[in-house]
This record gives sequence, structure tokens and C-alpha cells, in this order.
Amino acid sequence: MIVVLTGGTGGAKLIEGLAAEIDPAELTIICNTGDDAIIHGLYVSPDIDTITYTLAGVVDPDQGWGIKGDTFNALNQLSRVGSDTWFNLGDKDLATHITRTSYLREGLKLSEVTERIRRAFGVKSRILPMSDERIETRIGTPKGEIPFQEFFVKLRCAPEVTAVHFRGVETSQPASGVLDAVGQAAAIIVGPSNPITSIGPILAVPGIRAALSESLAPTVGVSPIIGSSAVSGPAAKLMLARGLEVSSYGVAQCYADFLDTFLIAKEDQNLTNRIEALNIRTVCANIRITTLTDKRRLAREVLASAQK
Amino acid sequence: MIVVLTGGTGGAKLIEGLAAEIDPAELTIICNTGDDAIIHGLYVSPDIDTITYTLAGVVDPDQGWGIKGDTFNALNQLSRVGSDTWFNLGDKDLATHITRTSYLREGLKLSEVTERIRRAFGVKSRILPMSDERIETRIGTPKGEIPFQEFFVKLRCAPEVTAVHFRGVETSQPASGVLDAVGQAAAIIVGPSNPITSIGPILAVPGIRAALSESLAPTVGVSPIIGSSAVSGPAAKLMLARGLEVSSYGVAQCYADFLDTFLIAKEDQNLTNRIEALNIRTVCANIRITTLTDKRRLAREVLASAQK
Repeated sequence: MIVVLTGGTGGAKLIEGLAAEIDPAELTIICNTGDDAIIHGLYVSPDIDTITYTLAGVVDPDQGWGIKGDTFNALNQLSRVGSDTWFNLGDKDLATHITRTSYLREGLKLSEVTERIRRAFGVKSRILPMSDERIETRIGTPKGEIPFQEFFVKLRCAPEVTAVHFRGVETSQPASGVLDAVGQAAAIIVGPSNPITSIGPILAVPGIRAALSESLAPTVGVSPIIGSSAVSGPAAKLMLARGLEVSSYGVAQCYADFLDTFLIAKEDQNLTNRIEALNIRTVCANIRITTLTDKRRLAREVLASAQK
Repeated sequence: MIVVLTGGTGGAKLIEGLAAEIDPAELTIICNTGDDAIIHGLYVSPDIDTITYTLAGVVDPDQGWGIKGDTFNALNQLSRVGSDTWFNLGDKDLATHITRTSYLREGLKLSEVTERIRRAFGVKSRILPMSDERIETRIGTPKGEIPFQEFFVKLRCAPEVTAVHFRGVETSQPASGVLDAVGQAAAIIVGPSNPITSIGPILAVPGIRAALSESLAPTVGVSPIIGSSAVSGPAAKLMLARGLEVSSYGVAQCYADFLDTFLIAKEDQNLTNRIEALNIRTVCANIRITTLTDKRRLAREVLASAQK
């Protein structure tokens, strides 16, 4: 069984490749839930949804999130009756949030709900939220602290970032199944996700980081940074706010206590020595992935790195 | 100010006519909420919605409920992920239920939520739920008791009806504004709605029936029955279950303590003497209403009857 730690769109691409290269039932995915938000009273879990939709083959290929061919009639109507509709929710996508919210209100845990939904979508891989408890990624800005989705979606990452924290994480625990999966993994993969707000919250859940360090399984990461730019999303801005160098070296520092091997871009070969000084083996690869062929090739490189 | 007691589709037709004949801001509508149901975790209030959509001019004219031109992409997706989708919910319609549920979770009362939603739809008439408390119409069948929507929508009124009751009504109170509206009304109109499960729950809320009896305003009803058949819906079956004669006379009996005038179908002229023996003046009229012209004509007859 192979465990993947991931956020949303970046990690989803690698996971799509992995699911095409090996039996998807052999994959257990541990998802960030720090981005989760209550939108119009519905519990939205963007990273879990992106992974679920990707593995179900229904993700919108242009956006990398949402359901392909979705309509937005409910959202337009919400706007018409006076709601603030900065968070995009398609009609089919809404069905997921309605179902999740309804199950949670019935008293099911997020992990139980996630299991039911991925099965309903015919997804063979196991998808686990990092925790069943509510952990909220909050972004400090000069105008005050705001939830991650407001920073990311509503304000399009425009505000200056003064701090990042994960409200509720100190008293949280890993969702049932998470520590067992890490303990039993034949290999652990850290997706090319934002190290601060995608992988960061997972590592901040008490017990997960220790379990990764203690694991004897090969642990392989893929950098989300090429040169000094994130492949997508606000990783660079958030890394700066945390005082990290915006480079694959800065990302490697975040994972230094548990990562065995790190795949970085060929153009970052000059970072090899510095990363290896962190006691992390470095593999230079083509980490820009767009087509399914790219995703499968990178997945093979990751799997091969986990063999060594 | 004119007060109308109503359920869903039948009453909505008369209300559409009334709103075309007088200033809609002069109308206060007291709506049945016994049909309300939690569907996929969302609070659905079918009669309030039908009245709101009708007065907003967006109701589906063929069905008499829902929003015209609506799509069903969320519902189809809910079905695809394993939900039981016997209750029809369009995408635009969903926006109403999502908004209502979200407001209720924030702690607003149903009357406050209803006020916000009708204003968002640009409806000038006041719409009041009969109560802010949860009252559930339950239908007794040989196989046990079921919620009204399950009987009406899922089972299409097929089961034998052994009892009807309004769970929670004994300890409920009228929503704020209801008794004041009845007390200050220049006229009170009872819509051509099912007397058992549309008007019945309203009359069962402690205090409302007494306020109607005490009101000095002319009180005019329109029969929902022609001959021994309901104009629409399961009124006949439900009246039988309550031991009532299925006729305008049976309906008149339900309202005998507060009704001044009852509009019945011309073909039911033979019932005039029996109804008048209940101390209710009878007006024979064309109570079949389909077109807006029909609705306005009947509204004028009702308003004229309230003048005498």
C-alpha cells in the first residue's frame, strides 16, 4: 500500500498518474482539510473533492477542480437572492457538498463521509482527511486574519501575508486510519503541493509528523517549485511569509526530518548539493506535468525512486 | 390589510388573482408549514415556496410549484451518488432551500427567514409561516405513520389513510405577526386549499382558530371541492379519513366557527341550504380557475363577498 500526502490540484495530477500506473486500490491518500470552508451553510472540502473527482475521472480538466460540464444555476440564483457568491459551486458539485453536510449533521465523521462519497463516485483508492476535527487555515494580513479560501479565492491571493496558522490543529488528532496507513505503507509520497497550506496542515496534526519520521518506508517528495516560482498557486508568497527560501531547497527544509528522496526540476540541479546536505537524496526530473503521459511518466519516476 | 390562509398550489392561484386585483402590499399571507420537510439535510418549505414563487412571477406555470425553466443537475447528481431523490428539487429552487437552511442554522426564526427570502424575490406581500416552531403533518397508514411529503410525493397518495396528525402542534405558538395580522385584518380569506392538511395545521396552532372566531372582519372561504372531488390533490381521501363528507358541505363544517361566507361551485348549489344551516352565507361561483383571467375574476368575487 502506497500513501500519498496531498493538497488539491497539484497533488491530484501526480495521483492521477499513480492511479494509472498501479492498481488504484493500492493507494491511500491523506488529504489536507485546512482549506475546508462552510459556504452557504454547506461543508465544502476542496482538496478532498478535487482528489475524489480526479480519481473518478469527472474533474474539470481545464480548471483542475470542480466537475466537468457542470452548470451554475443554483449559484446564479443564490447571487440573485442576495448571497455573496465568490466561491464557485457548480450544480453537480453542490450535490457533493449537500451530501457531505447532511451526513455530518447526522453525526458521521468526516472520514466516514469521505469514504461513502468516494465509493459513491466509484473511486477505488482510499481517501482520508488528515483529521476528523475542524482545522482552519487562517492567513494573517495587515488588515487582520482571514480564512484561507477568502484569501485564495475571494481576494485572489492579493493581500500581503504576515502569518499563517492552523486554528484548532494543536488539540486535533489524525483521522482514524491515518497513522495506521503511514505505519503500514510500503512507500510514502509527498505530492507536489504547497508546503505551507497544503502539506503544512497535515504535518501539523499531532502525531502525523512523528509517524512519518518513524516510518521505515521510503519517502519520496515532488517539488511544487521550479526556480523561484510555484508551478501553480500561492506557495511562493506563503513560503516567504514563513521566512523560507522560495525554492526546492526551501521546500526540502520543510520535510527534512522524514523525506528520503526529493524530485526537483532539472533546471534546479544547482540546488542538489544544498538539498543533499539536508540528508535528502535528490533526483532531477521533468516535474512540469500537463498531459496524462506526463503524469504517468512522473508517477513512474516517483515509484522508481521509492524502490531505491 | 387582507389576510389569506393558504396551503400551496390551490391557494396560490387565488392569491395570484388577488395580487393582480389589489395592491399586493395590502396582502398578508399565512402559510401552512406542516408539509415542511428536511430533504438532503435542507429545510424545504413547499407551501411558502409556492406562494413566494407565484407572487414573484417565477413559478413553473405547468406544475404550479418550483421555478420555471429550472434544471435538475444537482438532483441528478445526488441520485448518481446514491441518494433517494423522490423529492424534486430544481437547481434554482435549491438556492432557496440552501439559503433558508443556512439562515436557520445561524439562529434566525422561520418567519425572519421567510421575510428575507420574499424580499429577495421582490415580493411585496407579507408571507408568514403559521408558526416558527416545527410542526409535522403525519399520515397514519396501515403500515405505520409517515411524513406528509412521503405520502404525497413519494407514494403519490396511494396508501390507505387511517389518521392525520400534526406532530408538535399542541405545544406550538403562532409565528410573530400572525395573531396581529388576523386581529387587524379588514378581511380574512381562506384559500381553496385542502382543509385537512393545508388549512388544518394552521387552525390547529393554539390561538389562531380563536383569533379567527373573535375577528369582526368578514371571513370568506373558497371551496377546494367540486361535487365530491377535490379540484386537485388528496383532499377527498384525507377528508374521508377524518370522517368528513367529501363535499363543500364537509369543508364548510371545518370552518363553521369562523367563516361568514363560502364560495362554492355552481354545480353544488344543492348544498346551499345545508351550508347556510351552519350559519355560513353561500355564494355559488365558477371556482375552477386556470387562466389569470379566471384567477382575477374569482379574486374579485371573493373581495366583493368580503364587502357585504
